[in-house]
Amino acid sequence: MSDGPDRRFADAVGSVPILEAMEIRLVEVRSGRAVAELPPEPNVNHFGVTYAGSLFSVAEMLGGVLSLATFDLEGDLAGFVPIVKESTIRFRRPALGVVRAETLLSDEEVARVRRDALETGKGEFVLEATLTDAQGEVVASTAGTYQLRRL
Amino acid sequence: MSDGPDRRFADAVGSVPILEAMEIRLVEVRSGRAVAELPPEPNVNHFGVTYAGSLFSVAEMLGGVLSLATFDLEGDLAGFVPIVKESTIRFRRPALGVVRAETLLSDEEVARVRRDALETGKGEFVLEATLTDAQGEVVASTAGTYQLRRL
Repeated sequence: MSDGPDRRFADAVGSVPILEAMEIRLVEVRSGRAVAELPPEPNVNHFGVTYAGSLFSVAEMLGGVLSLATFDLEGDLAGFVPIVKESTIRFRRPALGVVRAETLLSDEEVARVRRDALETGKGEFVLEATLTDAQGEVVASTAGTYQLRRL
Repeated sequence: MSDGPDRRFADAVGSVPILEAMEIRLVEVRSGRAVAELPPEPNVNHFGVTYAGSLFSVAEMLGGVLSLATFDLEGDLAGFVPIVKESTIRFRRPALGVVRAETLLSDEEVARVRRDALETGKGEFVLEATLTDAQGEVVASTAGTYQLRRL
């Protein structure tokens, strides 16, 4: 991918109406890395602070798009789907303005998950995401446990 | 409250546009107890399963409405607001159909939180919520850490 997230990833977000309603925008999606932005409206509460559930969602959905971009779910991992098992979010400070969520999965982890999935039918991994405001201050962080599972 | 959640709690949900977009319905809100329902549309993904972020949200917002119903935030706790510090959600099975989220806070915990808030300016509590489908099967569970904090 040379110039930003391709159609496939945007379609994955657009297929969940409530994610589309949050107006989440994919900024960068490639193997091992996913970044998205969440605008304030319609995600703010009556104090003008971005609602906890929208912060959770923008971080959580990165696990899905990162999986699509990282694992060859139409090739050697055809028949596998990414599912989220558990997720923890820590709120650090009130989130004001556009929030950026980023996550990374190392090449070593990608190789291990792929191997585990092919050998056992299940590849589990933990994705940590960091949510920052326009000033680069961390407003929240998440750790999600995902599995690639054979359907 | 004699016949269902009053206007005050519905207004709290309605003040966050994205919660309104999820079409969350308060079923019961009283001191120490809050119950809400989440309909499938617009919260389903392309498999027809309710999206993780909507499950998180319906459970998380119970902490806010329970706090409003349980603590006298316009009386002896005037000036305090409930904030969420951290939350963990565990996904047990695919959520199909209307999902019901319930949470409880015991009288002992209510008394302790109130005392801590008045004595120290901060009352922390953990709320566990259970999310069930129409058959009563648990689809997810959450544990959220909340604080009543003086603004």
